Amino acid sequence: MDVRNLSDLLDRFSEHWSPKKIAELNDYDIKLVKVQGDFVWHSHDDTDELFLVVDGELTIQLRDRDVVLGAGELFVVPRGVAHCPRADREAAALLIEPRGVVNTGQAGGALTAGPETLS
Amino acid sequence: MDVRNLSDLLDRFSEHWSPKKIAELNDYDIKLVKVQGDFVWHSHDDTDELFLVVDGELTIQLRDRDVVLGAGELFVVPRGVAHCPRADREAAALLIEPRGVVNTGQAGGALTAGPETLS
Repeated sequence: MDVRNLSDLLDRFSEHWSPKKIAELNDYDIKLVKVQGDFVWHSHDDTDELFLVVDGELTIQLRDRDVVLGAGELFVVPRGVAHCPRADREAAALLIEPRGVVNTGQAGGALTAGPETLS
Repeated sequence: MDVRNLSDLLDRFSEHWSPKKIAELNDYDIKLVKVQGDFVWHSHDDTDELFLVVDGELTIQLRDRDVVLGAGELFVVPRGVAHCPRADREAAALLIEPRGVVNTGQAGGALTAGPETLS
């Protein structure tokens, strides 16, 4: 049970689209992710997903609009809603969702990555 | 389902120790709180509680040590662990815990405040 400094933790990895688990809250994982470029369209049928941008700008593409998030802005993608994150330049976000949720949802594919723990 | 800008939301209230609900994530509430002075010693027997400081400095007193959090630092108080938040100067934090958790836990008292929703 330690203090987690988001900026220090972000200095410890560089890969994109590969969430790092930094804390647990009951049966939820708190994760940090660096992003750049396009992710894949996917949805999570059983859970909402929270994005809180901590650095840069992240666009969450929905089927009917783009949600643009800057640092200090959060957005919850409701369960079942198709979305595709995108960042033209590198950005970083905090993700919160139940343990075991797969990052690519039902879509799978090469960008599927389980959360490595950043202890 | 809107973007929630933490800084803008903090400009919309001034009272201390009175969490404002700003989003929902499944059966969890995402809340913002402004704090100054001492809260009350309490614990939550059934849930962990996440604090993410967004402005200023927040100390979470535990029975055996003080946890000092600056902006961009998060800490999860495990279920059942007595804690008493304190801030010498005004600070602001994001709180995440299951819907229905009472801010003063088992302690009750004058600082008990249900989350008002900041729409």
